Formats: sequence, structure tokens, C-alpha cells
Amino acid sequence: MKESTVMMFMDSLWVMVAAILVIGMQAGFALLEAGSTRMKNSGHVAGKQILSFAIATIAFWAAGFGITFGEGNSFFGASGWLMHGDSKTFDSLSWANVPLSLKFLFQLAFVGVSLAIAWGGFAERAKLSVYFIFGTVFTVLIYPIIGHWVWGGGWLGKMGMQDFAGSTVVHLQGAIAALVATLLLGPRIGKFNKDRTPNLIPGHNQVYTVLGGIILWIGWFGFNAGSTMGTADGFFGYIALTTNLAAAAGAIGAILTSKLLTGKADIPAMVNGVLAALVAITAACAFVEAWAAIVIGAFAGAFTFWTSVYFERKGIDDPIYAFSVHGIAGILGTISTGIFASPRLVEQTGVGKAGLLYGGGFQQLFVQTIGVIGAAGYVAIVSFILLFALKKLIGLRVTPEQEISGLDISEHGSYGYPEHLDPAITQKAN
Amino acid sequence: MKESTVMMFMDSLWVMVAAILVIGMQAGFALLEAGSTRMKNSGHVAGKQILSFAIATIAFWAAGFGITFGEGNSFFGASGWLMHGDSKTFDSLSWANVPLSLKFLFQLAFVGVSLAIAWGGFAERAKLSVYFIFGTVFTVLIYPIIGHWVWGGGWLGKMGMQDFAGSTVVHLQGAIAALVATLLLGPRIGKFNKDRTPNLIPGHNQVYTVLGGIILWIGWFGFNAGSTMGTADGFFGYIALTTNLAAAAGAIGAILTSKLLTGKADIPAMVNGVLAALVAITAACAFVEAWAAIVIGAFAGAFTFWTSVYFERKGIDDPIYAFSVHGIAGILGTISTGIFASPRLVEQTGVGKAGLLYGGGFQQLFVQTIGVIGAAGYVAIVSFILLFALKKLIGLRVTPEQEISGLDISEHGSYGYPEHLDPAITQKAN
Amino acid sequence: MKESTVMMFMDSLWVMVAAILVIGMQAGFALLEAGSTRMKNSGHVAGKQILSFAIATIAFWAAGFGITFGEGNSFFGASGWLMHGDSKTFDSLSWANVPLSLKFLFQLAFVGVSLAIAWGGFAERAKLSVYFIFGTVFTVLIYPIIGHWVWGGGWLGKMGMQDFAGSTVVHLQGAIAALVATLLLGPRIGKFNKDRTPNLIPGHNQVYTVLGGIILWIGWFGFNAGSTMGTADGFFGYIALTTNLAAAAGAIGAILTSKLLTGKADIPAMVNGVLAALVAITAACAFVEAWAAIVIGAFAGAFTFWTSVYFERKGIDDPIYAFSVHGIAGILGTISTGIFASPRLVEQTGVGKAGLLYGGGFQQLFVQTIGVIGAAGYVAIVSFILLFALKKLIGLRVTPEQEISGLDISEHGSYGYPEHLDPAITQKAN
Repeated sequence: MKESTVMMFMDSLWVMVAAILVIGMQAGFALLEAGSTRMKNSGHVAGKQILSFAIATIAFWAAGFGITFGEGNSFFGASGWLMHGDSKTFDSLSWANVPLSLKFLFQLAFVGVSLAIAWGGFAERAKLSVYFIFGTVFTVLIYPIIGHWVWGGGWLGKMGMQDFAGSTVVHLQGAIAALVATLLLGPRIGKFNKDRTPNLIPGHNQVYTVLGGIILWIGWFGFNAGSTMGTADGFFGYIALTTNLAAAAGAIGAILTSKLLTGKADIPAMVNGVLAALVAITAACAFVEAWAAIVIGAFAGAFTFWTSVYFERKGIDDPIYAFSVHGIAGILGTISTGIFASPRLVEQTGVGKAGLLYGGGFQQLFVQTIGVIGAAGYVAIVSFILLFALKKLIGLRVTPEQEISGLDISEHGSYGYPEHLDPAITQKAN
Repeated sequence: MKESTVMMFMDSLWVMVAAILVIGMQAGFALLEAGSTRMKNSGHVAGKQILSFAIATIAFWAAGFGITFGEGNSFFGASGWLMHGDSKTFDSLSWANVPLSLKFLFQLAFVGVSLAIAWGGFAERAKLSVYFIFGTVFTVLIYPIIGHWVWGGGWLGKMGMQDFAGSTVVHLQGAIAALVATLLLGPRIGKFNKDRTPNLIPGHNQVYTVLGGIILWIGWFGFNAGSTMGTADGFFGYIALTTNLAAAAGAIGAILTSKLLTGKADIPAMVNGVLAALVAITAACAFVEAWAAIVIGAFAGAFTFWTSVYFERKGIDDPIYAFSVHGIAGILGTISTGIFASPRLVEQTGVGKAGLLYGGGFQQLFVQTIGVIGAAGYVAIVSFILLFALKKLIGLRVTPEQEISGLDISEHGSYGYPEHLDPAITQKAN
Repeated sequence: MKESTVMMFMDSLWVMVAAILVIGMQAGFALLEAGSTRMKNSGHVAGKQILSFAIATIAFWAAGFGITFGEGNSFFGASGWLMHGDSKTFDSLSWANVPLSLKFLFQLAFVGVSLAIAWGGFAERAKLSVYFIFGTVFTVLIYPIIGHWVWGGGWLGKMGMQDFAGSTVVHLQGAIAALVATLLLGPRIGKFNKDRTPNLIPGHNQVYTVLGGIILWIGWFGFNAGSTMGTADGFFGYIALTTNLAAAAGAIGAILTSKLLTGKADIPAMVNGVLAALVAITAACAFVEAWAAIVIGAFAGAFTFWTSVYFERKGIDDPIYAFSVHGIAGILGTISTGIFASPRLVEQTGVGKAGLLYGGGFQQLFVQTIGVIGAAGYVAIVSFILLFALKKLIGLRVTPEQEISGLDISEHGSYGYPEHLDPAITQKAN
């Protein structure tokens, strides 16, 4: 057995572990979103996470993977359906020294995260059927296009765009879809008063929110450090370090900002600060120094707290602040490498150029900006066309009566917490 | 240092990770079962998971491991008590290139899962003392015998039975024990009306059910892919792929079947569909193509939804549907390789023959059927003798008063949710 | 590529996995502590876990790591600020063959655990600002000193103290800080009657407690087995074995003791028994035989149940029994190697001497005792000075009104469970 073979097995083992960690983020999203919404929707909100990952699995296997990484042109892949193909079919993944099955699983896990983010914008009022349809289309026609542009041999990758683990590809994408959804669905009943001031609709369980946040933090070690798809030089350890420093700075940045701006050291805001910081460091984790990771994380945590308050005041009801946490932070993170990318790390990764701070000039900053605009534009347009069509054809939203009684009973026929909410049971108990 | 030594360390690392994932499934069962039962029993249901894994650990170390894998005959091992022994003592595990401590931990994790499944049939009405006694006997005299027959050098293994990670050894076994228990215990108070129609006794927390389901899904990567007990050829990646595809198909199969048959897109039913699909692919994961994994998963998810409704209507109160999800699906999965086992994968694993679809004829199907009948028969007989004797000697079931007040207060002396249920506290609050 | 390079990557992979597992223990503490306290404090109790790990991350990166492992003298390190430095700066970690980033992450995870333990003594009544201040000081001036003494080239390490993964360094330290805090804060309102008899203040959710316990059990495989910081000889598998056996014995020891002493087979007591056993085996896991691990675990589980009852009767309100579970068990575990350390394992690890039982005499027992006294003394003194000063300067404790209304609303401005506790919401619902 050659050493290169041993290295292949070792890289496979790391990608396996990383894929499991990232798939495990589904549990994090289920808890984060269920905790941040109301009891009457909790079974639905948690359960749709499993449904959505199931849909993504089948759709990405059948078609999405081929469009993302299959042989094609600068805009889309056009081979590798049903994941079939030889090494040439998926040539854009040839740099990773692991079996195709693991390449698929790891990339699938990313689609699953992007889709989970998108659902944030649908929370507490969308029809179940919309999840089936939008989930399938997102997995086949939205995510794979951006994935191909940046990582699959497409035009953004060729320009040298730095998006190590997907601040743009995964997070901004999901967030743009969430924004389009939340605008087309409109605010939840009771969110805004007649004078357009917002009411707080608090999530029902902060322990879930916190637990979801920790699971996501943990999963991000797979997300970012796993994006090396290999163990060479122990570089994944460095990425785990920048990731962890950014997350910590995000927590502190957000809770202090919350205290300063609103007088409340808000726990869910702190959790969102962790996530915003992780989103921001996702693009930058392999390109920036430890101190810069702290700066990026702290700024993302603080700034997105402010944007989430701002958008809410502007009349946008984004129930779990998906656009701020994943969208604004995704933009911040993608742009940040244009400023902070360090020459020694750019050399290590071999992608793009050093940032503004290191005398790299505006070139990388320009490339990053183009990437953000291109990706956001495409997702916005396709999501809008699809959701607008669905709105006209079948309707996106449940009836007001269904929304008030909650999606658990109206869309699934049973309460998530029957002993708290089901009148037949609670009356019997009293 | 030789390359074979490096490979041994790497295989050890993978088995370590896999063992941790499978032991982590205890958390999945704790949540799944607690979420699917009532608040008044929740501390008991969750807590007995730790108790049961503790009992299994000590009993498997002392005796079960030796009976499963120790030197012996075609029916049981008879050496390796207290896990002591040299390489000859555990010769049936010699194919795995890892230290004995890791072989033990990985196999222990499997016993723990099998026992967790069995408890499903005892839920919400069995005495705590029964858990101590049945748990010990299951770990020493039930599981090890079937384990020995299939994996420890026994007669089923010699016949070429294909059960890669234990659809029969782990899941069917636990499910048969659960079925015997649920029949001997009888239905929960209030489950059936006088006209023998069933009442729904909904679980108290669907978020737990969903979270438990995701944890089990994640753990199954260790369960199935870890059963390679090595990293060679990156084959564990392929197994993770078939496992994931099946689980996804099971979710979709079950939720659609639930909607079609009952008009409800039931969330717990979808979670059970995921689990049934995972149970079914457990035997087959290393033998079937990706498309077949989808077929097996979708069918298992859909069919076991129907069987769980069917058995309930027939007067069997299986509180968390353990027999359908692990038993029926375990049989489906074991039989499935007789149909779908692909020649190239049979060659890779070196176990048994190709299935019916690939011109292998009925031979493998026959072997698989014998395996199912043999294993189910043995477990049914020994479980029945033991539980029937316990019923006569000490009683299996708490008193009706205890059952109505709940096991948390009656068996453990404190409520799992005191602020919701303890009259002394809730009155003070009002 | 040389084999030594391949081994370095493999060791890195194991340390990465182990670090992730240990960081994941933050989720375990969040659940354990939230489940063991009241609803009105749940968001605070869970959320402060994220805050505390964030503070620890930044403070340990900036200064704590250098004091623990930097070049210095027998009492403290004095180099490696901001984690900068070459291999000589962190010479005391030179035995571990992994990149500095991973050494840092793994050690940071340990600080995080130690700090999580300390918070137990602050539960349900401390001001949020105290968490910021004490967390920072603990990470910079308390933990690093003891860490340096034992693992960083200090005087206890030079004496041959055996504390493989930190029964003293991590657990006893956190527990002493918790004890000092709980004494200075005084008991929670309502804990003691006028005749000084204690009232039970039950935790609000045993499912969380159990889930937290399982997550910690799982994480301990990273904690103990990861402390090899390498894969050589598959020795980490052996450590995982002793760890698991001890945990199991602790569960059984505690639940039986609880039943015998109080008549209740208490679930939270069983979970604490698991943790006490894990704490005790933490020092000993690499030095003792499997049977001894069972003895140590069972004794720790049983004995600390008794001490937690004892201290409560003596008027100490330690809300989650941190001092018994981590302190008493930490002492037991550290001392235990002086008795049970086996010659073959002492040779394998190369630390200290065999224990009393193996004819090693009292020497190792003496060293272990000195270690316990030295560490406990230092932490007690510095914690007391700091907390006493804070008590005088800003006060440690919220007002009685705030304590009664709960920390979620008083310190963070929103309820952790608004639909259960917020009068504005619950009235609207009725």
C-alpha cells in the first residue's frame, strides 16, 4: 500500500467526520427555529427540517449534484445525473482526494444548510406543500447554479473569488431566498400594529435556541474546517481556530450591542450573534489571521443585531432574522477577505489575492463584490419567479384561521405539545 | 513504523468515532421515546436509557462479549469472560484490525441500541425492577446468542447470511423482545375503548421526537458505515451514501403514506419512517446500489406506517411502534438483500451471493429468510419465558394508581416536569 | 511524504475530533444545568454557557494559553501571548505531534469545561456582570496556574503527579470555585426553612438533565481518550474503555444508593452519579485496569450521592451539586491512582509510579495528595479574594425581587419560556 493511498483513506475519514457534523447541523436548525417560534408551530418547524433534508437528499442525488459539479460550461454542469459518472464527469472536484460518495455527502450537507436557512423566511405561515415544491426547485435549479459558478468550475471561481466554505454560496443564497419568501408571504398576524410599529413575538423556548446555537457552532467545525476536504498540513486545525475565535467574538459583540441599544442582554440575540459571526468567517476562515477573525466575528455579531432591529422597524417580518444573520453576515464575510486576506494564507489556499490591508489593492475586493452581487441577483430573481408563481397558482400561505390555530394542528393534524395545547387533553387534566 | 501499523491506527480512529456515534444514539432514543410518551413518564422514559446502557455495559463486559465473540461452537461462545483473553479468544473478530478495547466498545454500542429498542414495548407501565432484570438477561443470554450465530462464527454466518450492520441482529431482536413485552404487559389504561377501538395517546413533545430522530439518523452513519470497522478503500463512504439515501426516502415515503391513508401529514410518523428506512438499510447498506437503497427506504417507511396502524387496530398497544419500526423493517431489510444484493458489492464484502434481481436465484433469499426465522424464534421464546416468569413471580406492571399518576412520581419519587405537574408547586404558582 | 508526517496528520485528526467532542460538552452543561434549575432562570442558565465559552475563548487566546503552556518557571508560563510563538515558546506541549492551533483548541475546550463547572455554584442568583468578570479572571489567572503546575512543566508535573485528563486540573478546580461562590452568595431564597432544614427546589426538566448527562458522557470520550493527543498504539481505545466502564458503574452505584438512602430511585441523582464517576476516572483512566475503573466509578457515584445530601443538610445550597460531583469525585479520582495505578500502564504513560495495591507503597499516594491540596488551596484563595472583592464592590447577587421574578426577565429582559411564564402572553391565551 502506498502512502498516497493511506492519505486518501485519511482524507476520506476527515470528510466523513465533517459531513456527519454538517448533516448534524439540521438538528441545530430544528432547535434554533423551533425555539424561536411559538408552541403551536413547534412540531411543524422542527419536523420540516427532516422533510427538507430528505427532499434535498433525493433531489441533489438525482440532479443537483450534476448541475453543481458535473462537466458543463461556466454557468452550469450538465452531466452526472443520478450521481453516476467517472472521474471526468466530476472533474471540478478532482482536487479532493476522496471517493465520490463522500464528495457527494459533504456537498449535500451544504445544500441542506442553505435550504434550512431559506425556510427561516417561511416560518409560522407557509403551507406544507410549498416546502415540497420550493425545496425541490432550490436543490436543483437555485443552489447548484451558484455552487457551479464559485466551486464547480464556473465564472466566479475563474475570477478568483474567495469563498472558502460558502458565506455566499451557502448562507447568502439561503438568506436571499428567505428574504424573498418573507416579503411575498407578508408579516405574521399580530406582528405589526396599525401604526406599523412591530410587536415582539417571542420564541417559546430559549433553551432550544441556545442548544441549537451550540450544535450549529459545533457543526461549523465540519463546515469550515471540513472544506479542506483533506488533512494535509493539519491546515484544518488552523481553520477551526479562526472559526472558533470568530464565533466567540460574535457572541460578545452581539450581547454587548443588545445591551447598549436596547438595555436588554438578550439571549436569542447573543445566539444570533454567534451565528452571524460564523457565517461571516465562513468565507474568510482560510484566508485571515486569528486577530482578523476576531474583528470579523465581533463586527458581524454587533452589526447584524442592529440590522435585525432595523429591518423589523422597516416592516419586514423575518421571524428568525435569517436575512440579517445569514445574508448581511454572508455579505460582510465575503467582502472581508478583500480587506483582510493575508498573503501567507492566500498562498496556502491558492485562491485569489491578498486583501487591501496587505497592499493587495482593490482587486480582490472587487472580485468579492461581483460575487456577492451575482449570486444574490440570481437567487433573488429565480426565487421570486418561483414563489410569485406559486402564490398565484396555489397560494403560499395558510388561511388566517389556520395560522391562528397553528400549523401543527392545521397542517399536520396534531399538536406538537398536546398536553399544553390540545383542549381535549388539557380539559381532561383539569 | 510500517504502513500496516499506520492503517491499524487509522482503522482504530474510525472505529472510535463510529463507536461514539452509536453510543450517542442513546440520546436519540431517550428523546424519541420521551417525546412520544406523556409528561408524567418523561423523566423515567429518558432516564432509563442511561440506566439501561449502564447495565448493558457491565453485563456485556462481564459475560455477553465472551458469549458473542469468544471461542466456542456454532451456537455460543464460551470464553473471554470479563473481556479477558488473547487474540485467539476472540478469533471471530480477527478480521478487524483494531485493539480489543475498540472492538468491545463498538459491539457494546450495538447491544445498547438493541436493548433500547426492546424498552419501547415496556413504555409507560413497567416496573423499574423489570428493567434491571430484563436488561441484564438480554445482554447476557439473548443478544449474544444471535450475535454469535450471525457475526461470531455461528451457524447463520456460516450459511452466508447477509446482515451487514444488524437489521436482524440488532433491530429485529430488540423489536421481538418489545413485542413479547407489550403483549404480556397488556395495553396502557385508556388506550382501548370498550368496543376495542383505539384511542390516540399522543406523545408530549414533537420537538424531542424530531430531535431524537435526527440524532439517530446521524448515529446511523456510525452504525452502518462503522460496521466496516476500517477505512480501506473508503468503502465506509459508500455505505454512508446508501444509508442516507434510504433515510431520506423513508421520510418522504412515510409522510406521503400518512397523508394518503389518514389525511394527516403526521410528524411523528415521518420520523418513524426515517427510522424504519434506516433499520431496513442496515442489513443491505453494503450490498445494494444507490437506487435500490432508495427503493428499500421508501418502501420500509411507507409499509411500516401501515403496519403500525394495523397492529394498533388489532388491539396491540405498542406505544412507540417499536415492532413495526424495528421489527417489520428489520425483516424487510434482511430479506431485501436476497433480492437486491449486487454482484460487485457482494464481491467487495465477501459475504453471501447476489440477489434474485441479478440472477442469483432464490438461494440468498432463502438464507436470509432462515436467518429471520431463527433469530426471531429464539428471541421470542427466551423473552417470553423470562417475562412470563417475572410476571408470575414479581409482576411486570405497576398498579393502576401508579400508572395513572405516572412513573416519574411512582417509581422515582419526583416529577420530570415538577413545575407543570407537581400540585404543590403549581398551586403555589397560582 | 514520510510516515511520521502521515502520523502527524492522523494525530491531528484525532485531536480535532476530540476537541470538537469536548467543546460539545458545553451543550451538555447547558442542558444539565438548565434542566436542574427552574423555568424562570432557564434561558439565563443555558445562555450563559455560550457567553462563558466565548469569554474563555478570547481570554485564553490572549493570555491564558501562554500562562499555562508558555515558557516560564515552575509556577507560571510567561510567554506566548495572543497565542503567538514558535515551538520553543510552547515547549511543554512538544510531546504532542499536532499543529499549535489544535493544541490550543483542545486545551481551550478544557478551560471551558472547568469554567462551566464553576458556574454551578452561581446558579439562579448571581448577576450577569459577575459572569463577565469572574469568567475572564478564571481563564487568565486561576486555571492557567494549576494547568501549568501539572501539565505545563510546573512543580506538580515534575513531582510525577498523575492526572491524565484533569480530575484535579479541570474538575476539582471548577468545583472549588463553585464552592467558594455558593458560600459567598448564600442559599437561594426558599432553600432553607427557619429551622435550617432544606427544601427541595426541583429542576424543571429531567429530560434536559438526562440529555445533558448523555452528551457529557459522549463528550468524555474526547476528554479522556483525546488527552493522548495521538493515535499511537490505539491506546486511546483503552482509555475510552475504562472511561465507559466507570460511567456505567457510577450510574448503577448512584441509583442504588439513592434508593437505599432515601427510598427514591432518583433520576437526576443517577445522572450525577454518571458524572461523578466520569470525573473520578478522568485522572485514572490511563493508569488503571478495567476492573479498577468499575470500582472507582461505582464508589464515586455512590459516595458523592451521600455527600450531596450531607452538604445540603449542613446548610450549603449548591444548586446542581457541583462540589460533590466535580470536587469530591475529583479528589477521589486523583487519589485513586495512588492506590490502583497498574505497573504496565504506568510504564505505557511514563508518568509517576505504580499504586499502593501493586506494591508501589505510599509514594504516589503522597504525590497525588499534595497535588489535590496544592490545587484546591490556590483556587480557593484566589477565587475567594476575587469574589469577596466583587461582593463588596458591585455585589454578587441580584435583588430578592429579581431573584423571585427570575433571572430571565430581570437580567435579560425576556422569559426563556414566555408562553408559560409571561403574564401578558398567558393571559391572552386564556
